[in-house]
Amino acid sequence: MKATVTVMLKNGVLDPQGEAVRRALGSLGFEGVHGVRQGKVIELDLTAADRAAAETEVRAMCEKLLANTVIESYRIEIA
Amino acid sequence: MKATVTVMLKNGVLDPQGEAVRRALGSLGFEGVHGVRQGKVIELDLTAADRAAAETEVRAMCEKLLANTVIESYRIEIA
Repeated sequence: MKATVTVMLKNGVLDPQGEAVRRALGSLGFEGVHGVRQGKVIELDLTAADRAAAETEVRAMCEKLLANTVIESYRIEIA
Repeated sequence: MKATVTVMLKNGVLDPQGEAVRRALGSLGFEGVHGVRQGKVIELDLTAADRAAAETEVRAMCEKLLANTVIESYRIEIA
């Protein structure tokens, strides 16, 4: 079973990486880019009995390791 | 208009970051994680006339800056 976790900085948390990308795009001539936020995506290949078990396990992984929930939010998709 | 770009290392390209996550999950007691790949996700806030124009512009951004197409593949979603 495949799970995809997307981790983004929460709104209001400064994102210097995204800001650097925005400036770089501007200097390359891409006008009209107002905001850029950069996050990470983690694709997991799991042996889980069913979707519910997979989601529970991945949620525990996010809370313990994959996301810093003080400043980051995460989204889980099971495929 | 919002665009989301997901950049992943191509299959066959070594992903040490993903491998480090896999080992860390194993040492935290998460058994049954066979493989982990880590990539990045970039959310762009654009002023584009329509979806087609946005997609064309974002594709150019990916080719020029956001992805290293030698080792990375990218996926664009316009919302």
